[in-house]
Amino acid sequence: MTDTVVSSATRELKIGFDRPFAIIGERINPTGRKILAAEMKAGDYSRVEADARAQVAAGAEMLDVNAGIPLADEPGILADSIKLVQSVTDVPLSIDSSIVAALEAGLAVYQGKALLNSVTGEEERLETVLPLAKKYGAAVVAISNDEAGISENPDERFDVAKKIVARAADHGIHYSDIVVDPLVMPVGAVGSAGRQVLHLVKRLREELKVNTTCGASNFSFGIPNRKGMDGTFLSMAIAAGLTSAITNPLHEEVMQAVFGANVVMGRDVNCAKWLKRYRQPATADGAAGGARGGREGRRRRRA
Amino acid sequence: MTDTVVSSATRELKIGFDRPFAIIGERINPTGRKILAAEMKAGDYSRVEADARAQVAAGAEMLDVNAGIPLADEPGILADSIKLVQSVTDVPLSIDSSIVAALEAGLAVYQGKALLNSVTGEEERLETVLPLAKKYGAAVVAISNDEAGISENPDERFDVAKKIVARAADHGIHYSDIVVDPLVMPVGAVGSAGRQVLHLVKRLREELKVNTTCGASNFSFGIPNRKGMDGTFLSMAIAAGLTSAITNPLHEEVMQAVFGANVVMGRDVNCAKWLKRYRQPATADGAAGGARGGREGRRRRRA
Repeated sequence: MTDTVVSSATRELKIGFDRPFAIIGERINPTGRKILAAEMKAGDYSRVEADARAQVAAGAEMLDVNAGIPLADEPGILADSIKLVQSVTDVPLSIDSSIVAALEAGLAVYQGKALLNSVTGEEERLETVLPLAKKYGAAVVAISNDEAGISENPDERFDVAKKIVARAADHGIHYSDIVVDPLVMPVGAVGSAGRQVLHLVKRLREELKVNTTCGASNFSFGIPNRKGMDGTFLSMAIAAGLTSAITNPLHEEVMQAVFGANVVMGRDVNCAKWLKRYRQPATADGAAGGARGGREGRRRRRA
Repeated sequence: MTDTVVSSATRELKIGFDRPFAIIGERINPTGRKILAAEMKAGDYSRVEADARAQVAAGAEMLDVNAGIPLADEPGILADSIKLVQSVTDVPLSIDSSIVAALEAGLAVYQGKALLNSVTGEEERLETVLPLAKKYGAAVVAISNDEAGISENPDERFDVAKKIVARAADHGIHYSDIVVDPLVMPVGAVGSAGRQVLHLVKRLREELKVNTTCGASNFSFGIPNRKGMDGTFLSMAIAAGLTSAITNPLHEEVMQAVFGANVVMGRDVNCAKWLKRYRQPATADGAAGGARGGREGRRRRRA
């Protein structure tokens, strides 16, 4: 029954085994988004603001903020982005960077208890990120790779996660503040990628008792109908015990899988959120009401 | 690694832990289908034939055939339906009736090794259906209710399943010829329905080592966006170990979940079936080719 608690200045989110699945919006990330990268580098955060608002409106309970732009002042841009996002939404944030100075710049301006994304099993990373998490009282995403890279053996990845949790304890960080990413590989390249994740998520939950997250859409990289596959993969990972994911809340297939999984797991009492999302109130012309209900309704009538 | 083998005169299907998930088409069933019921009663099997062909074309590897029509000659209609379906498709059949004489009439005309649907934990049913299964060498669906009805406690349902498997052994029927239905309740009425199924499927697989099936769409009874929920529920049940379902293969959401689940479980080598279903060959106007690929393509472009 481990809960990982994160917060903004005014709002708390508990990620946990018996909680509704937590969706962490992935969109504020300039990797592969040339226009966003150029704008952020030039100090234009209008798209960051729009992405923040849209993802929260779509159901994200948390947002990942990444400012990884080559040859840019990543610490400054990340800090600015976090201040901006916190001024327009009240959801807790995940501060995402591979540069420790950027993580610290983000933490310094963050209001609340952040999720630091991420520490790995690499010695240098462990000994710089964990003290930072402790200093600022942040929770941390632990990625299960180390100096040897990403093992294709999920039990070796489990061992890396176990090492990180133990090291965090040495730094005074409780395992409830560690959210392990089992690492999702593209199934088009690694045929056992799905089974690996289901197996690892179960072990992480039963043996380390930690919450888990993943970059879910990596699974479908390179194959067609990615959104359909992402939804199926996510719901199955939730059945195995996954408690959060960094993903795109603007994809209806993904949100349907998450809302549905909450119903199946008994975490949507009386199916209230499912009903709110998909119930189609009758209107004068018989059309479905509500933006999402209507979209689904059209799709169903055509099928 | 239990395999349940069923067959038609010319084709074999193995339902098993490491096999692609088996879809048993549910459409040939007059319950709630007034026109079909009236036609079948009048000896018109044109819709039965069309439903058989359509379900196999949509990906069903097996078909359930039910002729439960009030005040009709169910044994005769069921036998006629089975002969008809076996003349137009080569997939194995599930012979479905609550009337033992109808089950026997179906078995008498069936070519191959059928799945008998079903036996329960009720004493009278056990002692009539199991000898029939033994006599004709059929596999049997075991439904986990007994004289006391359907327990809301999944562990009591497990005990009923265990009793059926033991009694089948007394009759010389190996557990690999028993496919247990854990009973899926509507989540709108029983909030724990999803967790119950996930829990039971795991126990049935690990402790009794039996294959499993269920009437999947019962889960979403009474709530909106049923197909979306059915797909999510099915993929999660597959993650827990479900190996077959009696469901509607004409529902794209359901088939997407099953094809996706086969990829996640590593049972679609090189994602070949997923690619075949969803790959969109380029055409002159850039539109997607293939009936299903095209449909999905339109959906994706609009999203």
